[in-house]
Amino acid sequence: MVYTNGKKILELCGAEAVYTSCEYMMRYLIGFAAENGCVVVDKTGSTLYTDMRYAEAAEKMFAGTDVTVAMHKRDEVLARLATYKSVGISFDQTAHIESLNLEKAGITLVNVDDAFNTAMMVKNEWELDNIAKACEIAEDAFNELLPEIKEGMTEMEVAALLEYKMRKLGAEGLSFPTIVAFGAHAAVPHHETGVTKLKFGDEILIDFGCRINGYCSDITRTFLFGDDGKHEAFKKAYASVLKAHNLAQEKITSGMTGKEADAIARESLKADGYGDLFTHSLGHGIGLNVHEQPGVSPRGEKVLVDGMVFSDEPGVYEAGQYGIRIEDTVTLKNGKVMSFMSKTQKELIIL
Amino acid sequence: MVYTNGKKILELCGAEAVYTSCEYMMRYLIGFAAENGCVVVDKTGSTLYTDMRYAEAAEKMFAGTDVTVAMHKRDEVLARLATYKSVGISFDQTAHIESLNLEKAGITLVNVDDAFNTAMMVKNEWELDNIAKACEIAEDAFNELLPEIKEGMTEMEVAALLEYKMRKLGAEGLSFPTIVAFGAHAAVPHHETGVTKLKFGDEILIDFGCRINGYCSDITRTFLFGDDGKHEAFKKAYASVLKAHNLAQEKITSGMTGKEADAIARESLKADGYGDLFTHSLGHGIGLNVHEQPGVSPRGEKVLVDGMVFSDEPGVYEAGQYGIRIEDTVTLKNGKVMSFMSKTQKELIIL
Repeated sequence: MVYTNGKKILELCGAEAVYTSCEYMMRYLIGFAAENGCVVVDKTGSTLYTDMRYAEAAEKMFAGTDVTVAMHKRDEVLARLATYKSVGISFDQTAHIESLNLEKAGITLVNVDDAFNTAMMVKNEWELDNIAKACEIAEDAFNELLPEIKEGMTEMEVAALLEYKMRKLGAEGLSFPTIVAFGAHAAVPHHETGVTKLKFGDEILIDFGCRINGYCSDITRTFLFGDDGKHEAFKKAYASVLKAHNLAQEKITSGMTGKEADAIARESLKADGYGDLFTHSLGHGIGLNVHEQPGVSPRGEKVLVDGMVFSDEPGVYEAGQYGIRIEDTVTLKNGKVMSFMSKTQKELIIL
Repeated sequence: MVYTNGKKILELCGAEAVYTSCEYMMRYLIGFAAENGCVVVDKTGSTLYTDMRYAEAAEKMFAGTDVTVAMHKRDEVLARLATYKSVGISFDQTAHIESLNLEKAGITLVNVDDAFNTAMMVKNEWELDNIAKACEIAEDAFNELLPEIKEGMTEMEVAALLEYKMRKLGAEGLSFPTIVAFGAHAAVPHHETGVTKLKFGDEILIDFGCRINGYCSDITRTFLFGDDGKHEAFKKAYASVLKAHNLAQEKITSGMTGKEADAIARESLKADGYGDLFTHSLGHGIGLNVHEQPGVSPRGEKVLVDGMVFSDEPGVYEAGQYGIRIEDTVTLKNGKVMSFMSKTQKELIIL
């Protein structure tokens, strides 16, 4: 379990206690989140303040640990926080009104955002297990989806069917709103899934993911709904994107910066003549947030180390024509890339 | 359309301009939201600051209106805001770090939360249309779901199937995570949908809703999966909850306070001997947030007026035994309650 994360944050931020009511930060500190709840961590352990809805489940879960469960009474939490020399809160995830109230109660605030961003980059075994499970569900759902894609379905229907399959396989929710793009829509990296109907010969790009215990998967697959013989440029670019995608997984090693990792795929695409059409980063960190640190981009100064989780997602976009992105969620283990995705086909699928 | 809402907020808060990057507030001000975007309103009109992903769609949508579309450059927005005597922001929806940055730029901040909460209570026609559509999809999905509920399905599977149907019918997302409770789980008003399997004779409570243009529906139905002859107490309570639910729709009128409206259902349940088992409010406001003002509760001091939208959801919960809640999303029109729900059966359904 993850209860040591609270100590990591305390050490990194230098405050005497840490306070949060942000869902993903609660999950990070104690592996559990409650609506209308909060967590306080100090050197003696963590307290989850919650209400009747969650108290029973929480007490069972935290029996024998250093996490105490208490009823959430706002005034009592404020009074407790006022006893510390300084309290770490997230300046990014705390509402202005809440920080004003904390200051009014005489509490000295320290920003813990850097501490969370830094600590959260490297995942422990429990976190990796959750991400692996979220990736497995995403891949299983995709494989179930393929034979059910039919001419005339809208982008939204395909998204709905895929989301249904992930939920049915046990996902608690989505990592982000599913992107389904037919035909030239795929050339827009953040296309908004709409009511366009699928036709024979269309390409299909699907970018999706789901959550387990708050932890995300993120995966993109691009394929053809039948081959109308007009896809030569697409197929050539697909082969180049796949080559860059695979090269990144072969060549990225612990100890590289995000920038160096990004360059592996970028140089490969550039050599194939697609340099200008790869318009985004190779990857981003993935965890309790679907976009977090480290950045794997031309501006990525952070050094990649074992236990980090990020995406490997080169893409090529020719406006009005086609778009290709092939994305895995991967981690670094024993110095090398290990992909969480092994169940879906990456060689071009033609339905 | 809703572009007059910005002027309403300006007048209510007294600031020279209003600034927000909060999704639901952007939607309220201009009927459109963009990730990484923001809206500034002053007496000359509204500006949507956004990026390439949304610019084309936004320019088409706002042609000929008083909404201008501009590229989102943080420094330019800050410089513009600094030219106003005061700028209204939401102290509740703005991160502490952002308000610090605004203050650092010399901007005088005014809290607009009361203005938004007050203005958002009364919906215009466009808003009512969106809510009506979200309600219709929820009801259609429920009716499609009923014949597909089978013994052995888990709560999560039923939730996933219902969510799929709403998405397929055009919902852009959920109002909140769907609650599906089998058997005695229904006695927990905020039960967490789990892996319990459906058995003959179980009661089923489903609380769900979906969104259109950000606007929510909220509906609860309680029914039986077969009648094993052990449901006398349940049926008696069901009849009483339905009576209270219908009475509220007959008797609530514009001009009453939330407290007076709540009392109509509460007194009816009390007279039937269920007073202690109705453990929550009769209703809450519904709009861009699934819970907003006005409260329809024993503490509801606000006066209900035409155009407000709220839930009518009396409930009776007998711990370990059963739980019943019957919920419609309703509005006030010409002084009387008009329910958005007319397609689903409220007399007890026995599958």
